Amino acid sequence: MAQGNAPIHDIIHLGAVELLTPKPDKSLWYFRDVLGMELAHARGESAYLRGYGDYATSTVKLTQSKNPGVGCISWRAASPQAMERRAKAIDASGLGLGWSEGDFGRGRSYRFRTPDGHLMEVYYEETKYRAPEHLRSTLKNLPQKYTGRGANVRRIDHLALLARDVAANRRFAQEQLGFQLREQVIFENGKTEIGSWLSPTAVHHQVAFVKDVKGGSGRLHHFSMWVDNREDVLRAATVLTENGVFIEAGPSMHNNSQGFYLYSYEPGGNRIEVYSGSYLVFAPDWEPVTWNEEERGTGVYWGGALPESFLTYATPDIPAPAAAARSEVPVFDPN
Amino acid sequence: MAQGNAPIHDIIHLGAVELLTPKPDKSLWYFRDVLGMELAHARGESAYLRGYGDYATSTVKLTQSKNPGVGCISWRAASPQAMERRAKAIDASGLGLGWSEGDFGRGRSYRFRTPDGHLMEVYYEETKYRAPEHLRSTLKNLPQKYTGRGANVRRIDHLALLARDVAANRRFAQEQLGFQLREQVIFENGKTEIGSWLSPTAVHHQVAFVKDVKGGSGRLHHFSMWVDNREDVLRAATVLTENGVFIEAGPSMHNNSQGFYLYSYEPGGNRIEVYSGSYLVFAPDWEPVTWNEEERGTGVYWGGALPESFLTYATPDIPAPAAAARSEVPVFDPN
Amino acid sequence: MAQGNAPIHDIIHLGAVELLTPKPDKSLWYFRDVLGMELAHARGESAYLRGYGDYATSTVKLTQSKNPGVGCISWRAASPQAMERRAKAIDASGLGLGWSEGDFGRGRSYRFRTPDGHLMEVYYEETKYRAPEHLRSTLKNLPQKYTGRGANVRRIDHLALLARDVAANRRFAQEQLGFQLREQVIFENGKTEIGSWLSPTAVHHQVAFVKDVKGGSGRLHHFSMWVDNREDVLRAATVLTENGVFIEAGPSMHNNSQGFYLYSYEPGGNRIEVYSGSYLVFAPDWEPVTWNEEERGTGVYWGGALPESFLTYATPDIPAPAAAARSEVPVFDPN
Amino acid sequence: MAQGNAPIHDIIHLGAVELLTPKPDKSLWYFRDVLGMELAHARGESAYLRGYGDYATSTVKLTQSKNPGVGCISWRAASPQAMERRAKAIDASGLGLGWSEGDFGRGRSYRFRTPDGHLMEVYYEETKYRAPEHLRSTLKNLPQKYTGRGANVRRIDHLALLARDVAANRRFAQEQLGFQLREQVIFENGKTEIGSWLSPTAVHHQVAFVKDVKGGSGRLHHFSMWVDNREDVLRAATVLTENGVFIEAGPSMHNNSQGFYLYSYEPGGNRIEVYSGSYLVFAPDWEPVTWNEEERGTGVYWGGALPESFLTYATPDIPAPAAAARSEVPVFDPN
Repeated sequence: MAQGNAPIHDIIHLGAVELLTPKPDKSLWYFRDVLGMELAHARGESAYLRGYGDYATSTVKLTQSKNPGVGCISWRAASPQAMERRAKAIDASGLGLGWSEGDFGRGRSYRFRTPDGHLMEVYYEETKYRAPEHLRSTLKNLPQKYTGRGANVRRIDHLALLARDVAANRRFAQEQLGFQLREQVIFENGKTEIGSWLSPTAVHHQVAFVKDVKGGSGRLHHFSMWVDNREDVLRAATVLTENGVFIEAGPSMHNNSQGFYLYSYEPGGNRIEVYSGSYLVFAPDWEPVTWNEEERGTGVYWGGALPESFLTYATPDIPAPAAAARSEVPVFDPN
Repeated sequence: MAQGNAPIHDIIHLGAVELLTPKPDKSLWYFRDVLGMELAHARGESAYLRGYGDYATSTVKLTQSKNPGVGCISWRAASPQAMERRAKAIDASGLGLGWSEGDFGRGRSYRFRTPDGHLMEVYYEETKYRAPEHLRSTLKNLPQKYTGRGANVRRIDHLALLARDVAANRRFAQEQLGFQLREQVIFENGKTEIGSWLSPTAVHHQVAFVKDVKGGSGRLHHFSMWVDNREDVLRAATVLTENGVFIEAGPSMHNNSQGFYLYSYEPGGNRIEVYSGSYLVFAPDWEPVTWNEEERGTGVYWGGALPESFLTYATPDIPAPAAAARSEVPVFDPN
Repeated sequence: MAQGNAPIHDIIHLGAVELLTPKPDKSLWYFRDVLGMELAHARGESAYLRGYGDYATSTVKLTQSKNPGVGCISWRAASPQAMERRAKAIDASGLGLGWSEGDFGRGRSYRFRTPDGHLMEVYYEETKYRAPEHLRSTLKNLPQKYTGRGANVRRIDHLALLARDVAANRRFAQEQLGFQLREQVIFENGKTEIGSWLSPTAVHHQVAFVKDVKGGSGRLHHFSMWVDNREDVLRAATVLTENGVFIEAGPSMHNNSQGFYLYSYEPGGNRIEVYSGSYLVFAPDWEPVTWNEEERGTGVYWGGALPESFLTYATPDIPAPAAAARSEVPVFDPN
Repeated sequence: MAQGNAPIHDIIHLGAVELLTPKPDKSLWYFRDVLGMELAHARGESAYLRGYGDYATSTVKLTQSKNPGVGCISWRAASPQAMERRAKAIDASGLGLGWSEGDFGRGRSYRFRTPDGHLMEVYYEETKYRAPEHLRSTLKNLPQKYTGRGANVRRIDHLALLARDVAANRRFAQEQLGFQLREQVIFENGKTEIGSWLSPTAVHHQVAFVKDVKGGSGRLHHFSMWVDNREDVLRAATVLTENGVFIEAGPSMHNNSQGFYLYSYEPGGNRIEVYSGSYLVFAPDWEPVTWNEEERGTGVYWGGALPESFLTYATPDIPAPAAAARSEVPVFDPN
């Protein structure tokens, strides 16, 4: 499949992710004490966190909620003009929600929903992080001290969203957001688009849309934090296990994306990945890599097979569809 | 369980392992081209190999055979006197076979069988490896050049042997060989000894005896080669996969032994581990760590669950016992 | 210093580097047998190589020459139109050389010289690599098999060029090539621009211009190949040392760029880096990080100090300037 | 040089090291908050610490003192009888001091001085560590939780002691303590013994005696803590640097011992190594590896040269000898 649109670079990278959690205190413990992020701010029912390598003041927002899941997903535009262009285009697509006043650390944004209903926004103004004295790094080009606490994740990397109609959401990301399509899983001789991985930057993917086998909408499969070396993922496995956090899968290596992964559930229920490896994509004429049933296999290059829950659990959790409906939905693993 | 005998240090370390293979050429390719060992010698139906860090001329012998499995397992004695003492003691135990003339790189040895029938020997004379010019290391204390080929395993580490009566073999290793018992898996409220890990040196274990769920005798569960860092095991996973070698389990971390493992099958059928991590045992009064059903769980600290084959496959392969017999044998994973 | 121009994305990444060598056979040995690259093609006095992760057919060209140094540096454009735009702009700048017919694996290109005289070109047409059977990876998204030979470098990353007037070359890269300025070393209270690091993509830098302390022109400080983990750099150090290749500096970590580096000299004399770590830059309004004398220090975050040769040696090598001239040129280390 | 005595295994491993510090609070911060050890006990002017992998209750004792340096070095005997045998032999050598009542976590000991005056003791009774609830590991065979704090060193490994007469101390360790000689640096055609590395166990060395170039006595060159992977040493470098701790040398690799090292000064002034790699020695007839001036070179296999301070600084610090005396003392680096 050729790229529908050349990337237009109006959106330049994933800026922030809001996670909903019914257990905000325990989720904060997970991200701060176990993953080693810093609490940058707290306001009302939300806590704002950051990785030591994120240049923004905050990249992860935890918001108390009845159910877990993903809140607003923020994409940074390349310029104020680029933001306006995207707003106009999305508005024309009929999925726009209008302008917001911004949030902690970010200026006004244009909000919209994906065809599947995930809430997103595009913004330009960003408060660059200025570390307080005790968090100042001895490296001038590192936004914040490497504190050496827990898994000490560096920065946000990507998220995987479930969707009832993967193709519709993939096209939206290509056409309205200007993302480049990187890889796809397509079953049944090219008829069923099971998953698509896209990115606005050289990072392999910053968003994936994957078939929701339960037929839900707006759900989160996982959110991913980056560490620099595979060894950091192994170390994270020990840190998580010593802290009694359930590891669902990994450390292992995916075939799709070449990511070296580890998936755990934060106490609120969301699936969080500690991630390294993968590969950068530079080609402007990148040909998406497409995997059929046989090539995709279990989604694992080497390492233990992914458990059933990886295919069926997402947040918020919903009941499985009735047997009749389920038979139409291929089971698949997103990564 | 207290140590039956204080280690007597007559046997000082695992010296060499002979593997039987019905596909000698392909097995040689596996050990030399994929694992990165060197061929030190070839004679008749045997090839003699070595890891770059082994001080002996050869530590792995591949011998053509109708079926895969383990041939002779060689233990080095601390001195000629120690060898004589062990020979005498083993002879008195009724399991002695008598003296051999030695093999390539090693002098005469006293041969015997474990209660389960595995062939072993104790020897003292050893030809220290002298590298030919093209394999000389730039490190004076490294026996051989690190060639940077394939997984480039450093040295032999340990083996796991299946046994019908684990306790009998464990006692033999403690009492006749002077090994220290390091860990055990004991099920059914202390009644059923499923596996025992022992060593004559600070290395966590150099031999394990594990219940043969098929009721066979003299079989090999796996043989293990050491690499220095966990990252080397990950790299080995890619090297093996790129060479089309099936990886049965790992890279992952065991709970018992804390070993960081990767198991593949060499083309002859034997299960070979690439191994790092674990821990050294220094205490003379070490209390063996004992795991019951619940504590042992799947045998994995983190990482994918071990597959069924890990519990049922060993070399030579034999048919499963009849259903009646099988019900008496607890299923278990050795590592 | 604010970014002069917003990146315009006409040039999208470093595509290939030609290295000149007076010892082509030995240089080929270094890149193929020690670094683990593949020979993709040979023609006349040139050998064409590639890293297993490069999507292009060839990314490194070795050309026999009287002296070592850098030949043509190839930048890929985002589209044919982008190539034309760059050609027009560079032509207008007076530094254009005109169109070439292309080279092995790449179509026509527009050639030009930097203000300091380095030969560069911009091209669009690229032959995507199709691996022959024996080099086909078991990963569908990996262009070529990971062969597990030597240091097994993955892909080209960046180069550092010496220049008499760093500012002039830096401005040229910003204004004519659309690169984003990432970091700078500026001495004497902001008066003397010692080094500037720039990139057209999220990779921290793909080119650096650094003061030529000997007052030469068109010289190469180093060319850099990427590996995925710091551990791979350590392993490369052993591989290089076992092969008798001189390591000039590292493995260590730079402060500027956060690169984890290892510098050796290939037999032709060029300084080659094996490189990992560093950080990606996503911000469209990135504020270049500027280091003064004190902040820059030795250029090392931790690890051994860089040797004198790192400051004075480049290819082709030239005599040191007369003492009078030399006193005007601050000594500095590029990375 | 052949081994004088076969190892007699009466002493089985390094058990504990006491460090003297003029800045006990800051030293405690270094070992607990930066290296990640646990405080097991505090009494009077001493703090008792442990690595998460040490089986003993405490392995490092920090004692307030006017000057830094090493206090008592404790070796564990294989049995009460072995302790008595060593006591008798050392007493006969004229270097015995008599019996002590023991210390926190250890029973009675026989104390003595090396020929150079270092205080040592041999003991048998040891209190095995029982972790409090909040430090209990999820691994049954790990004495204590891996807390994921700072460099998180695992266990004590070895120490290097300066001596006026290396040969005398080396012979004492071989003959009275039963250690095996592993490596030596001998200059001037075999006449001047510059350094000797010895061990009572498979670990490459647990003590080194190295020429004191200032002619002092009883001084400490460094004390070393183990981590499992080289990557952990790299990570420690960042943790130390972010905490403002001076790194004197490394991360790099020694030729002698093959150790992968990092040396910093704890706030009290003692040189502390974070260490991995090296190799285990199994051979009962190990031939010590001997390095002359040329072979030894800088003591570094790859990585930055060791700084002058590594050769001249030890604790307690003392003035350099007068020029006349100094000329007799070869400068050398211990590791």
